[in-house]
Amino acid sequence: MVIVMQEGATDAQIQNVIDKLIAHGFDVHRSTGSAHTVLGAVGVHRDFDHRDFELLEGVREVMRITQPFKLASRQFKPEGTVIDLGRGVKIGGPDVVVAAGPCSVESREQMFAIAESVSKAGAKILRAGAFKPRTSPYAFQGMGEPGLIIMREAADKFGLFTVSEVMDPSQVEMMGNYVDIYQVGARNMQNYHLLRALGEVRKPVLLKRGMSATMEELLLSAEYILFGGNYNVILCEPVIQKLSHLPMWADPSHGTGRRDKVPPMARAAVAAGADGLLIEVHNDPEHALSDGAQSLEPNTFTQLMAELRIIAPAIGRRMA
Amino acid sequence: MVIVMQEGATDAQIQNVIDKLIAHGFDVHRSTGSAHTVLGAVGVHRDFDHRDFELLEGVREVMRITQPFKLASRQFKPEGTVIDLGRGVKIGGPDVVVAAGPCSVESREQMFAIAESVSKAGAKILRAGAFKPRTSPYAFQGMGEPGLIIMREAADKFGLFTVSEVMDPSQVEMMGNYVDIYQVGARNMQNYHLLRALGEVRKPVLLKRGMSATMEELLLSAEYILFGGNYNVILCEPVIQKLSHLPMWADPSHGTGRRDKVPPMARAAVAAGADGLLIEVHNDPEHALSDGAQSLEPNTFTQLMAELRIIAPAIGRRMA
Amino acid sequence: MVIVMQEGATDAQIQNVIDKLIAHGFDVHRSTGSAHTVLGAVGVHRDFDHRDFELLEGVREVMRITQPFKLASRQFKPEGTVIDLGRGVKIGGPDVVVAAGPCSVESREQMFAIAESVSKAGAKILRAGAFKPRTSPYAFQGMGEPGLIIMREAADKFGLFTVSEVMDPSQVEMMGNYVDIYQVGARNMQNYHLLRALGEVRKPVLLKRGMSATMEELLLSAEYILFGGNYNVILCEPVIQKLSHLPMWADPSHGTGRRDKVPPMARAAVAAGADGLLIEVHNDPEHALSDGAQSLEPNTFTQLMAELRIIAPAIGRRMA
Amino acid sequence: MVIVMQEGATDAQIQNVIDKLIAHGFDVHRSTGSAHTVLGAVGVHRDFDHRDFELLEGVREVMRITQPFKLASRQFKPEGTVIDLGRGVKIGGPDVVVAAGPCSVESREQMFAIAESVSKAGAKILRAGAFKPRTSPYAFQGMGEPGLIIMREAADKFGLFTVSEVMDPSQVEMMGNYVDIYQVGARNMQNYHLLRALGEVRKPVLLKRGMSATMEELLLSAEYILFGGNYNVILCEPVIQKLSHLPMWADPSHGTGRRDKVPPMARAAVAAGADGLLIEVHNDPEHALSDGAQSLEPNTFTQLMAELRIIAPAIGRRMA
Repeated sequence: MVIVMQEGATDAQIQNVIDKLIAHGFDVHRSTGSAHTVLGAVGVHRDFDHRDFELLEGVREVMRITQPFKLASRQFKPEGTVIDLGRGVKIGGPDVVVAAGPCSVESREQMFAIAESVSKAGAKILRAGAFKPRTSPYAFQGMGEPGLIIMREAADKFGLFTVSEVMDPSQVEMMGNYVDIYQVGARNMQNYHLLRALGEVRKPVLLKRGMSATMEELLLSAEYILFGGNYNVILCEPVIQKLSHLPMWADPSHGTGRRDKVPPMARAAVAAGADGLLIEVHNDPEHALSDGAQSLEPNTFTQLMAELRIIAPAIGRRMA
Repeated sequence: MVIVMQEGATDAQIQNVIDKLIAHGFDVHRSTGSAHTVLGAVGVHRDFDHRDFELLEGVREVMRITQPFKLASRQFKPEGTVIDLGRGVKIGGPDVVVAAGPCSVESREQMFAIAESVSKAGAKILRAGAFKPRTSPYAFQGMGEPGLIIMREAADKFGLFTVSEVMDPSQVEMMGNYVDIYQVGARNMQNYHLLRALGEVRKPVLLKRGMSATMEELLLSAEYILFGGNYNVILCEPVIQKLSHLPMWADPSHGTGRRDKVPPMARAAVAAGADGLLIEVHNDPEHALSDGAQSLEPNTFTQLMAELRIIAPAIGRRMA
Repeated sequence: MVIVMQEGATDAQIQNVIDKLIAHGFDVHRSTGSAHTVLGAVGVHRDFDHRDFELLEGVREVMRITQPFKLASRQFKPEGTVIDLGRGVKIGGPDVVVAAGPCSVESREQMFAIAESVSKAGAKILRAGAFKPRTSPYAFQGMGEPGLIIMREAADKFGLFTVSEVMDPSQVEMMGNYVDIYQVGARNMQNYHLLRALGEVRKPVLLKRGMSATMEELLLSAEYILFGGNYNVILCEPVIQKLSHLPMWADPSHGTGRRDKVPPMARAAVAAGADGLLIEVHNDPEHALSDGAQSLEPNTFTQLMAELRIIAPAIGRRMA
Repeated sequence: MVIVMQEGATDAQIQNVIDKLIAHGFDVHRSTGSAHTVLGAVGVHRDFDHRDFELLEGVREVMRITQPFKLASRQFKPEGTVIDLGRGVKIGGPDVVVAAGPCSVESREQMFAIAESVSKAGAKILRAGAFKPRTSPYAFQGMGEPGLIIMREAADKFGLFTVSEVMDPSQVEMMGNYVDIYQVGARNMQNYHLLRALGEVRKPVLLKRGMSATMEELLLSAEYILFGGNYNVILCEPVIQKLSHLPMWADPSHGTGRRDKVPPMARAAVAAGADGLLIEVHNDPEHALSDGAQSLEPNTFTQLMAELRIIAPAIGRRMA
């Protein structure tokens, strides 16, 4: 922590701040400039409210130095995390991995048709929701466990892995029978009971960023999972950054909300360096029970995959 | 729903849209202008994705008419909801009600000292957290049920009601033994499992707006609770609006994050018409385990209450 | 400036940063902690791009200490700026001053009618636009100089001062014949040619904050005017802060955009400590040529002024 | 315009709204549903404040149908605008055109060195500023006309076109001697005096979107220029949209602000369909007088151009 005193701060005010820092266990370095005195407070105190010092007399500004997250930081694992799903599919390595499928599981016929077409087009993971976080209590809330059973069978038949959203700690154990990756939706990014429950399993977790959450808040939510001992976290976030060693995916379907904007954003994400994509594909978007408007038809998805195979090598990567 | 066709949309395109509207059960009114054809679709279909029509050929824009929430709307209860806590304390009527107390329950001594001072200053409700939604897994997470026991005793001794945050459906039943109002924090505004659980109890729920949530999203979250049969919902939100019949509170402590900005915002909220305030007060802010920086000292709180007693009558209200 | 090196930064990297700081004329203080080395760079270099240091090898973060504005800062004039318009009207002192009037000058009849009613209700300044920054080229663009002549006559007849928006450096001299305060609109907050021209006059300037501008950007725009030698700057900004010694007004009409929300926001601004208000009032809002929807009728304005007279004393102020 | 009446609106209220619409010259279509009456108002009134109707008794919501811009809309020119600079360089056609160069003109040596390297790498346009809109009055404000003379000579020597920022109407005529494209910066997007002046010339204008401006506001600013008779407008905007027939560029240097993030964003923009890019390149970024931190070194720029040549064909385009 660095504390900048106001111009004209008195010696007594400066000494008061120093005393409090020492009382909190910090080593203090004092630097006296022509205009300002600056105090450097060295020591690791992750649970520390720097605002307590901002309110002391004579203090102008307090800046945190130690990042509040540790396990999620790039320094913790400079070489980057690679998550091995098996059968040669690795997330966070040179390959760009695509998860595709409908917003919701609706029926056995639907899931098998979509699984077949996305598998042929090159997706490695089948995505679909069985529990849906709907803004309105009047909207379709998902098929629940019967939907997960269908999804697992469809994935197995076409050699795909599965990812599906978990909404509540009470669902974690049951869902582990069906999914290879747990997805945490944007609205649950700070549902700490859920994050703690996912820290106790060992399957990968795809963690989406909340609407207005900062990158730091996303990484602190990841830290909850990592802190529980589950190191297989994938971040899902439109802006590509390199603050963390965790793999980073993009979700152009929810990022745009309209079918015609999904391919441009998907191409942009791969060109910018995303490790993977989450794309909604439906065999009959007009009759989808949810999010049909942002689902690609299978032909458009196949065309998009062909475009991505041209783009990925521009930055030394390839589509899984 | 109103559908505006593009200039130059063909008759076949217009007929296609009309056919689909009828297939969804809408009555259709067609209006042909010099530049645009406009289709009015009448009927109530709350779970309807208007984007499905935006993607049809020849459509320029689709506008929803029916509000997606019903029970939370002003039309549902034009006279406004008044929640009677008992002993003459009513939320949503002419009185402005203040809930005050520390961010977290820390100890018996702390809670009794604070309860005594806020009660003397005119607060009617004691607020304090026993379960804390902390951004970092390394931060103090609250005392849990032992904290609630202390809070209840302190409130009872000084004739106060209680409000405290609930974070997970598994806590609802137990907390009902100690709190008079359940608080749902901003991060849980769209935790639908929690909202459904609170729809099944009959105690009031104070629902805070998520950081980037719209007023419509807040009201849809309220709708989850109302739909379960619990009509005692209080909204907590910085901007004062009149879309809903539900009482509206302000939280200047979390809205500003710094002690010196709390009184101006509290005065502003009452001047603008808030039905209540949630204010953090601590007897020893410097040593608070959380949020000390935004907690008022008892003297400042007493002074603020005196200012509010001058302001409330300017709009025909009074402090409870 | 404070430079935090990465964990594991080498001695050579640290020395390289130190060398560059010295080359830029800074005094350097080095502080070596258990995890990080921190370099304090002391000296005043307002035109300095701290990003140049962020890109050096081994650097984790660079934080600026010296505020980029000087003349606008609270330290420059701790006692606060008071602008004396004459005849006992002072902006920034204990009185809260109200400027009221129509969005646009439309006619002689209109201006005289409005000037009379706002004067009776207690406003001290007449506001109206003769040059209108309209988003659309098809909208009414204002009456120009003939409008200013009318405005001046109406103000003089009822003992009011005048404020009106200036849009281009070429208008500054001419407008000086008619206005007592120049207003710079939100869209022109960073029109530096205009700000420089206003630094050369000595009449007060009311500077509005741009839609997405930070408080720091607003103060830097004020700095352009102050730097030219004109110290009479009033800031117009919804959030009340105390970073600067300049008086701070609120504009509830443009802040809300709807007539029914203007009084609550006006009351809130005074309760929070605003030094003045800018309020749109029209004698016939339904036929106003611009912004009728956010203009108060004279009766509502009179009622609002009465409410404000109750609120101001709650914080030791009074309406001018 | 579509006006939705409240549930329970009276016949008198509905008739009052109809009367006012007719008085404003609209044709009115009335549609009576089970819950709401909807009024369709047909006619073209671009300068119309729909809020005036929102405030009438019994009205719930008013929705605009006619877009407020006309000349900038896709319908006005469905085939898209192509701007021919000459010598085979066309903006808005199949080729992706790159403008590159330093933030500011600093010296003759600098401009010739940079012009040579960006020309070799494949840029067709030289960009550099001679008038700089700096947030702080203490920052370097640009070389002015002498800088433009240098820029023109450097461009001519290496067969490049030029683009440079214009800040004030008084500069338009003089700058026409040196630049092939006028650039309007984000801070001047709503400087209407400047936009009108640029409507009167016939050289292309590159119009950047203001920080918080909506796409509609950007297109209305373009409309000012088009309305003056200058149809050669290029929009510069991070999000790619298809509301308009005007060519759309991206500015990854200012979009990101840091050198290491420029190539990912540049690749993303081309992958998403941008018609051109504006990229800051400096031969000695460490000593640049402005924005060195976001300027690419010539080698990095050459490498980026090679990557873009791989990406563009993925969507049927090529680098100019």
